[in-house]
Amino acid sequence: MEIALHIDSATLARYDRVRALRFDGDQLALLDQRRLPARTDWLSMRDHREVGQAITDLVVRGAPAIGIAAAYGLVLAARAGARLPIEERRAAFLAAAAHLRAARPTAVNLMWAIDRLLARCGADPEPDAVEAEARAIDAEDLAANYRMARLGAAYLAEGSGVLTHCNTGSLATAGLGTALGVIRAGWAAGRIRQVHAGETRPWLQGARLTAWELLEDGIPARLIADGAGAWLLAQGQTQWVIVGADRICANGDVANKIGTLSLAVAARQFGARTMVVAPASTVDLNTPDGSAIHIEERDPRELLEYAGQRVAAPGVEAWNPVFDVTPAALVDVIVTEKGVIEKPDAAKMGLVFG
Amino acid sequence: MEIALHIDSATLARYDRVRALRFDGDQLALLDQRRLPARTDWLSMRDHREVGQAITDLVVRGAPAIGIAAAYGLVLAARAGARLPIEERRAAFLAAAAHLRAARPTAVNLMWAIDRLLARCGADPEPDAVEAEARAIDAEDLAANYRMARLGAAYLAEGSGVLTHCNTGSLATAGLGTALGVIRAGWAAGRIRQVHAGETRPWLQGARLTAWELLEDGIPARLIADGAGAWLLAQGQTQWVIVGADRICANGDVANKIGTLSLAVAARQFGARTMVVAPASTVDLNTPDGSAIHIEERDPRELLEYAGQRVAAPGVEAWNPVFDVTPAALVDVIVTEKGVIEKPDAAKMGLVFG
Repeated sequence: MEIALHIDSATLARYDRVRALRFDGDQLALLDQRRLPARTDWLSMRDHREVGQAITDLVVRGAPAIGIAAAYGLVLAARAGARLPIEERRAAFLAAAAHLRAARPTAVNLMWAIDRLLARCGADPEPDAVEAEARAIDAEDLAANYRMARLGAAYLAEGSGVLTHCNTGSLATAGLGTALGVIRAGWAAGRIRQVHAGETRPWLQGARLTAWELLEDGIPARLIADGAGAWLLAQGQTQWVIVGADRICANGDVANKIGTLSLAVAARQFGARTMVVAPASTVDLNTPDGSAIHIEERDPRELLEYAGQRVAAPGVEAWNPVFDVTPAALVDVIVTEKGVIEKPDAAKMGLVFG
Repeated sequence: MEIALHIDSATLARYDRVRALRFDGDQLALLDQRRLPARTDWLSMRDHREVGQAITDLVVRGAPAIGIAAAYGLVLAARAGARLPIEERRAAFLAAAAHLRAARPTAVNLMWAIDRLLARCGADPEPDAVEAEARAIDAEDLAANYRMARLGAAYLAEGSGVLTHCNTGSLATAGLGTALGVIRAGWAAGRIRQVHAGETRPWLQGARLTAWELLEDGIPARLIADGAGAWLLAQGQTQWVIVGADRICANGDVANKIGTLSLAVAARQFGARTMVVAPASTVDLNTPDGSAIHIEERDPRELLEYAGQRVAAPGVEAWNPVFDVTPAALVDVIVTEKGVIEKPDAAKMGLVFG
């Protein structure tokens, strides 16, 4: 029962101009997302260790983009080991894969991209073959986003108000974005009246990245404090919370940026709906439900300091989980390029992804 | 059916050492809450206009503290006009009252304090009489907080986890605090296992003020991003959301710091309860319900900038409501010094405050 909005690719491409990853075969250039929007600095990664560090340090973030960056990191590893005997080459490749896998614990796309490269090229990590596979991951992510944008936007009635959280745009993916791709398509098709974006503390992906992407697109959007989401939804002018995902479990539970659960609970309370938009690579049938997910906690200083300035008094402690888990029961629609699932549960998930 | 926790005043006073207002008859000294905790600067206000500006600029904030500051502002106005003929003196006093009333639109304690001074001293604003009345408002607020602390803490079972939002402590009141007073009493009585505080964007009252007050008290607390509140509550270790109020309507709807609604919705979803702690002066029976409240919106730059540094790209817009309204149906207990109301509605509110 899938309906895709008819919207041509040229129109969608007008909203897909920002890119954050460039791979030229010998190095991976990453737009430093820690500095945006104040500065647009490109950093060059010449080996897989630099790529892993960039992932850990949030130079690149967003579950799909992390997977793509790791894939290119493995290309660099394959190239570095190209002249080694096959056994050593294979061992070095496996070691690089293990290193990259540890860069961020929650985003399953990272594991998925690495597993795919290991499965197809692990036995003989010939650099050109690894590169072809990495580029395929990149291209498939872009194509998936175009498809998801059309599938998700079909749910939006004319005049919809939408609220998004974190950054799920071109910066977080190969291009266009997941949740933001749906918003772009909905806007291009004239179905969206108003976009709100949560600032997304502590890292301010919404304020720094999503607001910037939407401004670049000419899509008017208003930023809100994360705590204002429920109040916005209570006004009744916002029909959809549209978010991405870092991992979707076998039962439809969704791990996503901290604050997502809060919005999904409020959406249900105030009669709005929650749409999760993520590529199939985000689905992990090996994770039965949200209780099995290891939730990454980052440095408390992200909350206690701002741009190197102390905010809270010295001695104050903080709890800084990066993700939360929204139970499937609070998710109205999951949109992936392989299919759309309404009111997700384990049976429906198994049908599409099993 | 009120039960107050037995806890002696000396014990409670150990958690009541921070003060933010000092009035010496000729000037009002305010601890500049914009600078805390990095700096403890006291600013001196010598006339009612300076007091009004300090209220508007958030040098002093917190609904009860604003009311007390405005009362002392009127003392300064009365002193300035003391030698005028009675008609002019009265007119100047009324003008000062109107000026102070406009300093912040949502906090009803401000209106309440001004109305009380006008009712008792408006006909002849003799400075010593106005000062006595202002000091009574101050002293009564402190006494109310001690009473509310005992009433609210009686609801906490041993080993409770509590989550608070914004700052409702000594800095926001005459002393001890409202919601934070309950937490202090609960801690002093050994009933609280863990305290979490939301950082409270955009102004970071939680990170800057509440965390600092609790640190000064030796009460261990963890700061969280506002968006993490629902996830914290979903863990099941936090039984109470305890907050203050800027206005309580005749039907029990509660206007409080933006983000409160989000926590109340999540508390209900995950089996925790919401306690609102505020002096009776916060109750406004002339406001039938939340829809009648004018919600103050502050400068979007509070979201777009941080400490003078631009966060969001130039051109980005923001919506910055300061308060939200939590419907009475999501409030489990309202604690005031005049009584405790469980599952508030208009009938119960009328019985206690009518």
